[in-house]
Amino acid sequence: MTTIIRGGTVVNADRAFRADVLCYGDKIVAVGENLDAPASARVIDATGQYVMPGGIDTHTHMNLPFMGTVTADDFFTGTAAGLAGGTTTIMDFVIPAPKQNLIEAYQQWREWSAMSAGDYTFHVAITWWDDTVHRDMGILVRDHGVNSFKHFMAYKNAIMADDETLVKSFRRSLELGAIPTVHAENGELVYQLQQDLLKKGLTGPSSHPLSRPPAVEAEAANRAIAIANVLNTPVYIVHVSCAESLDAITRARSNGQRVYGEALAGHLVIDDSVYQSDDLEFAAGHVMSPPFRSKHHQKALWNGLQSGNLHTTATDHCTFCAEQKAAGKDDFTKIPNGCGGVEDRMSVVWDAGVNTGVLTPSEFVRVTSTNAAQIFNIYPRKGVIAVGADADIVVWDPEGTRTISARTQFAKGGFNVFEGRTVKGIPSTTLAAGVVVFHRGELMAVAGAGRHIDRPAFNQGA
Amino acid sequence: MTTIIRGGTVVNADRAFRADVLCYGDKIVAVGENLDAPASARVIDATGQYVMPGGIDTHTHMNLPFMGTVTADDFFTGTAAGLAGGTTTIMDFVIPAPKQNLIEAYQQWREWSAMSAGDYTFHVAITWWDDTVHRDMGILVRDHGVNSFKHFMAYKNAIMADDETLVKSFRRSLELGAIPTVHAENGELVYQLQQDLLKKGLTGPSSHPLSRPPAVEAEAANRAIAIANVLNTPVYIVHVSCAESLDAITRARSNGQRVYGEALAGHLVIDDSVYQSDDLEFAAGHVMSPPFRSKHHQKALWNGLQSGNLHTTATDHCTFCAEQKAAGKDDFTKIPNGCGGVEDRMSVVWDAGVNTGVLTPSEFVRVTSTNAAQIFNIYPRKGVIAVGADADIVVWDPEGTRTISARTQFAKGGFNVFEGRTVKGIPSTTLAAGVVVFHRGELMAVAGAGRHIDRPAFNQGA
Amino acid sequence: MTTIIRGGTVVNADRAFRADVLCYGDKIVAVGENLDAPASARVIDATGQYVMPGGIDTHTHMNLPFMGTVTADDFFTGTAAGLAGGTTTIMDFVIPAPKQNLIEAYQQWREWSAMSAGDYTFHVAITWWDDTVHRDMGILVRDHGVNSFKHFMAYKNAIMADDETLVKSFRRSLELGAIPTVHAENGELVYQLQQDLLKKGLTGPSSHPLSRPPAVEAEAANRAIAIANVLNTPVYIVHVSCAESLDAITRARSNGQRVYGEALAGHLVIDDSVYQSDDLEFAAGHVMSPPFRSKHHQKALWNGLQSGNLHTTATDHCTFCAEQKAAGKDDFTKIPNGCGGVEDRMSVVWDAGVNTGVLTPSEFVRVTSTNAAQIFNIYPRKGVIAVGADADIVVWDPEGTRTISARTQFAKGGFNVFEGRTVKGIPSTTLAAGVVVFHRGELMAVAGAGRHIDRPAFNQGA
Amino acid sequence: MTTIIRGGTVVNADRAFRADVLCYGDKIVAVGENLDAPASARVIDATGQYVMPGGIDTHTHMNLPFMGTVTADDFFTGTAAGLAGGTTTIMDFVIPAPKQNLIEAYQQWREWSAMSAGDYTFHVAITWWDDTVHRDMGILVRDHGVNSFKHFMAYKNAIMADDETLVKSFRRSLELGAIPTVHAENGELVYQLQQDLLKKGLTGPSSHPLSRPPAVEAEAANRAIAIANVLNTPVYIVHVSCAESLDAITRARSNGQRVYGEALAGHLVIDDSVYQSDDLEFAAGHVMSPPFRSKHHQKALWNGLQSGNLHTTATDHCTFCAEQKAAGKDDFTKIPNGCGGVEDRMSVVWDAGVNTGVLTPSEFVRVTSTNAAQIFNIYPRKGVIAVGADADIVVWDPEGTRTISARTQFAKGGFNVFEGRTVKGIPSTTLAAGVVVFHRGELMAVAGAGRHIDRPAFNQGA
Repeated sequence: MTTIIRGGTVVNADRAFRADVLCYGDKIVAVGENLDAPASARVIDATGQYVMPGGIDTHTHMNLPFMGTVTADDFFTGTAAGLAGGTTTIMDFVIPAPKQNLIEAYQQWREWSAMSAGDYTFHVAITWWDDTVHRDMGILVRDHGVNSFKHFMAYKNAIMADDETLVKSFRRSLELGAIPTVHAENGELVYQLQQDLLKKGLTGPSSHPLSRPPAVEAEAANRAIAIANVLNTPVYIVHVSCAESLDAITRARSNGQRVYGEALAGHLVIDDSVYQSDDLEFAAGHVMSPPFRSKHHQKALWNGLQSGNLHTTATDHCTFCAEQKAAGKDDFTKIPNGCGGVEDRMSVVWDAGVNTGVLTPSEFVRVTSTNAAQIFNIYPRKGVIAVGADADIVVWDPEGTRTISARTQFAKGGFNVFEGRTVKGIPSTTLAAGVVVFHRGELMAVAGAGRHIDRPAFNQGA
Repeated sequence: MTTIIRGGTVVNADRAFRADVLCYGDKIVAVGENLDAPASARVIDATGQYVMPGGIDTHTHMNLPFMGTVTADDFFTGTAAGLAGGTTTIMDFVIPAPKQNLIEAYQQWREWSAMSAGDYTFHVAITWWDDTVHRDMGILVRDHGVNSFKHFMAYKNAIMADDETLVKSFRRSLELGAIPTVHAENGELVYQLQQDLLKKGLTGPSSHPLSRPPAVEAEAANRAIAIANVLNTPVYIVHVSCAESLDAITRARSNGQRVYGEALAGHLVIDDSVYQSDDLEFAAGHVMSPPFRSKHHQKALWNGLQSGNLHTTATDHCTFCAEQKAAGKDDFTKIPNGCGGVEDRMSVVWDAGVNTGVLTPSEFVRVTSTNAAQIFNIYPRKGVIAVGADADIVVWDPEGTRTISARTQFAKGGFNVFEGRTVKGIPSTTLAAGVVVFHRGELMAVAGAGRHIDRPAFNQGA
Repeated sequence: MTTIIRGGTVVNADRAFRADVLCYGDKIVAVGENLDAPASARVIDATGQYVMPGGIDTHTHMNLPFMGTVTADDFFTGTAAGLAGGTTTIMDFVIPAPKQNLIEAYQQWREWSAMSAGDYTFHVAITWWDDTVHRDMGILVRDHGVNSFKHFMAYKNAIMADDETLVKSFRRSLELGAIPTVHAENGELVYQLQQDLLKKGLTGPSSHPLSRPPAVEAEAANRAIAIANVLNTPVYIVHVSCAESLDAITRARSNGQRVYGEALAGHLVIDDSVYQSDDLEFAAGHVMSPPFRSKHHQKALWNGLQSGNLHTTATDHCTFCAEQKAAGKDDFTKIPNGCGGVEDRMSVVWDAGVNTGVLTPSEFVRVTSTNAAQIFNIYPRKGVIAVGADADIVVWDPEGTRTISARTQFAKGGFNVFEGRTVKGIPSTTLAAGVVVFHRGELMAVAGAGRHIDRPAFNQGA
Repeated sequence: MTTIIRGGTVVNADRAFRADVLCYGDKIVAVGENLDAPASARVIDATGQYVMPGGIDTHTHMNLPFMGTVTADDFFTGTAAGLAGGTTTIMDFVIPAPKQNLIEAYQQWREWSAMSAGDYTFHVAITWWDDTVHRDMGILVRDHGVNSFKHFMAYKNAIMADDETLVKSFRRSLELGAIPTVHAENGELVYQLQQDLLKKGLTGPSSHPLSRPPAVEAEAANRAIAIANVLNTPVYIVHVSCAESLDAITRARSNGQRVYGEALAGHLVIDDSVYQSDDLEFAAGHVMSPPFRSKHHQKALWNGLQSGNLHTTATDHCTFCAEQKAAGKDDFTKIPNGCGGVEDRMSVVWDAGVNTGVLTPSEFVRVTSTNAAQIFNIYPRKGVIAVGADADIVVWDPEGTRTISARTQFAKGGFNVFEGRTVKGIPSTTLAAGVVVFHRGELMAVAGAGRHIDRPAFNQGA
């Protein structure tokens, strides 16, 4: 199948320029002005629009098993929602239970993900340690296209990695050419604060942010960075939500360390007033970790994206419906943590970032796809409009608007943290692997059309 | 007994002024110009000299049991050496073994310390946790004059406190009106680095600093401060040795936290080149934790003392003789950690701090006694020359010099990290509890003359 | 005259303790428990109250000539208002016009100040430079008790000191043992921003803060600190109003520089929303420079006072009545800059600082008098309750309340930026030079009773 | 003319990949594996080598008139030396004398530069201000391809721009879509320190660094950044030489400002010990401003390049021969300021940056050409190996070595600050505008072959 996108402004991380883009099969085969195309080619008119690499959401949880249930979005509905929003690749997580064999867990997730409509790839969480974990990390890198491992510093008595596990896994990652990533919250402090709040009878969702203040996150970010410093590994901090964590990253980078940070679309625009709502279902719908913060932190995160101290944007898409959230109605620590957003990230970041002048269109591309592709070693297959790249393309209408709502979204779960927000700047067309999967509001996602993207190990010498 | 010190310049933390000082019994009873004194009074001529509060060394280990042996200095020789150097009070440590009853350990140390020639008081280490520890902390505060608890974040598989212990003990301290203190080094990282170095056959003392780089210390300092922040407790960081730890303190203080830091005399003037010596006995003699650092860090520590981001000076006096140090001749991790200094701190800090213009004499007093007395709640009994204060006084000859040497020191162990350093500014006379215990080079220390100093709990409301 | 203050808690910067205070003549002659006093002594009952050094307001402008008029408060009404509020000493400013002889200006201000009811002393502004200025600075220090010189980095085309003047005057100050102080705002930027706003027709008082953003202040603070650094002088920054200026101070102090900072009571509790008022008279009443800032900056200033990076509190008391303020009704740059507060500072700082737990009572004393006395070299005559000190004492009722209002204040000008604020913690009695000048709401100020306080030059060797 | 570079690894800022590069005329016309080329094409074998964009030196002074003489290198010898070192474009400076018409000065420099062997373009200095300057800035931007203006904050009584000029010129630059750049040193402080040193008889070159300490530079950098902040303009700091200036940049960037910094090759590897040489000619040969700094600052600059807080590398190439330098033999302030390096920068940065692992090859390209091209708006014509770009290419032999020496260099002046340094990583071939101008040590530079590069104004809306 041949498709030509005509008349738009191609935006890459390094520049923007007028060009047509010709796709054949699943690849981009030509980028230039006034390209010839076969008569049979489908023509997409991008006049007045931007033509950008499809978004990469570096942080999603589709089909996540949780407390005997699973998230509302499976890999089909989740990736399909992503395509509708201009995101063509997701990076999801394999989360082995403590003591569970890593390869077994990995295979389980691969099975679940086979129905994906868009491309996907996996970070694998290291939630425990023994010699088999050491061995299986090697197998995953060598044989399964995994080049990143995730560590939860929170969730005591569950999947929390202690310092010994962090140190051993970071070191093993370095040896293998993989990058360690961390969920940075001090699990011990969270646990204590939760117990304190519950003891005081403060059981509602407004206690959630009180149990996870910025200092709890900054401590863990700083600790992970220190471990990486001592072991001479890079490190990637997922969902940086507060100024203090960002400061730890900025300090380390200024000091010559290779540290990367990810911001969630939600943390960039939603503040912690949501937890004060009298509508407890609404408040519970916003329970995720780290929690939403005050506006001061939002400003800091935007500055981080602009200055290059934060690198990627993601969503931590992890949807639960109201019934699932209700599990914590008498105890906020039992509310399933998670919010959606895979469908909305691109528009939310554009609207709040580009329309306000904080980011240029090229910087938008950098933080929505290019940096992700480079950090996780799938560039230039992903993250750039160039000959030879995957034909994952979003045609972006900077004048188009959409009012986000759970009622009109493709994602499941019946809730949207961006509910009611009108964004200006939306996808008019999304191509995934050369196929038009979304066009002017119509979603044409196909279960199983998504591919697992192998990510090669880093060449440590390079 | 009555003693009058005539003609000197009294230096307190707030100012310096000409005055005589009259002592009766163990107290100062008058401070003023041209004081009358009974004919029987002993007269000390302080013309041209400073009259300052006796030093408080906030960090010593006398008679410390270690690997089947004990430190070279017991409480008599150690406190006597302190008196010779102008230090009249030491703060030592009760270190219960994991699972050892706290009160039992405390009684043991009190027994050992009964022979002290100078005043002493104890920090008690929390090296493990259960309900009896929680209970016994209360007994120590209420009944035994303890208002500070120490936590080792290093020494994995021995006395290291994990985050759970830190959190519980910090909180218990707050409840009791005691201040938590920490030895800040990430024990897990130290352990890993030690194993790595040993595996590479790097078994000599030059590996010691490589196993404990600044990042390892800064991580732990930052973590302790974060825990204190979240629990709303003050925190005191012992032996801050590097710029990065100090930065963590400075940041926290600038942000409204009550954080205190201690610098060791050794860290202020000795750099890490000592570990490169071909004389392995010399190198091993300098093995302590944190290790000596590069000159860059020394400058930072002095700035910290001047700016008020560091508060106290101490020594971590913990002497081992060459035979004891030799236990680690084939494995640097087995070298008993510790160096001396209780006899030298005052002169070293004066010579390198006041003579160079970094500190005023009043600031010298502040960082050698006043701040210690205030932070640990024995002010104004200690730390000031004023009516009603203990007659712990050092008459300081700013023109006097001494060349420090193990051959001429009073302390035991046969080694001195300041060996060969000529300091200008020395005690000419030391009074402890109103008694002249050191005069023009002659030490008149009496075993058992020292007293345990009860430190009341803080009034949290004040 | 003999007065004894019985039963209170004496609060000094180093500690608080139960003691009576006996005053004879203008001095404190005894401090202790259960003091004897002559039968004739006036007895002040301080039971349940604090007995603290009288406040020192380091920054006032009484009787300031301005645009053909003068401030509403002269030295009598201004110092009297201070006494009512517990402030017993003011530091005012001699501001020579460009080209005016310094000694002549100084004499003029001394003449105006002769009517003072409370003690006073002067900073002298260096608003221009030639050899006579160099000479007269020496005369002022040697013969007139001046040890501080003020430099306006703002007010272009008027009293602004350019870099050449700053450099020469800072250096001359060092030579003389005087401390340079600066009003830190970049006058060129202020001028440009004012012109821009006026050109856009934004002539109202809401333009005032827009013409003086934090960056304008921080630039000048940083510049003054850099000049001091290079010339090796101390420096004192008046009215630090924003986080960015404080950061410059904190950085410099952490780096070993002797930098001091002053916070105004107004900046600590009033935010910039006042400029948005529809009541233009109200808005104009708040026009001062630097302007009030957002709450974020208030938090930073409090942290600075607690951490010791800011040292003094003052008011910049400079009152204009509504008619005077109206001079700028069509052009905000013509509104006379200034607000009051000398009467309110102590209570405002106590209420917002001590009652909230940010400052201890001793820290309150430190930032309301002790640090000022030490920095400007009148300690221990001022700034401490001790034998030999001036009997400038405020008996402080921590339970007393007052609702601040222009209608009930002693100060002139008919306006109060703290209008309507109810403070808890007020003076019950003020003694100045041993005389009860305020007691239970009654002011007994006497014109001319105040004394000029000579401040000796610093001994640079000390 | 057609040239094909075969078998190398193309290195761009975003990635490195195996590809041939085909050049036709002055452009790159194909990049890909196994490209076809006409039989007539010149073939360059790049096996085992990197193929990178020709370097852009953002800071040179060729043919600079100075004190009645001119720099040793004119535009021919200077650009030719650049070509020999892999630098194909220089950015030089038009420096009008105070009161000189800008257009007249610009035309003069264009005349001098007509003999260039490599491409060139000009920053224009704003050394004074009146309405004609305002007008002529517009003419330069609209008609002469200038999009950057330079401001000297040093050189009092000569070309120093005061705050008023800075403010007016920055604002005018914004209006025109040009970027202001600054030489950041506080000229007043430099002047005072120079006078002091001369008065003390310290007239030799070792006084040079004493007259320009880091604080002098950091103050000016901070001031320029503050002005840019207030006026909302970007700003580019030339020759950042010290940690404190870099800190000012890092702070501003972290705070959301668009600030760029340039590091000189010399500052990256040479320390201030050169000024202590007994060989005064050697010491004078290193006199430039800012001076070389201690090693601590070098480490900071490398960290800045790696972290993205510094963006470009340059040389400030400005060569004077020994006779010219001798003008200051009795007065260091009269030593012509300037050193060379245009021929050496690429190898020095590669050797000290890439060979040590601080920078990846892609990051090397970023800081030697790509960022410069983007910041000064000549990307992607320059700064990338891509179809359509200028065929300015350096074939880089990572195994080749060269020992730098004035005896073997192409540049004039008879002196080299890198004398004796053996660098690994050298150009084997340089193409400029499609022509092989340097090949295996042989320089084939042609006078007049270089072209003026117009730089379009920035589109402020983009």
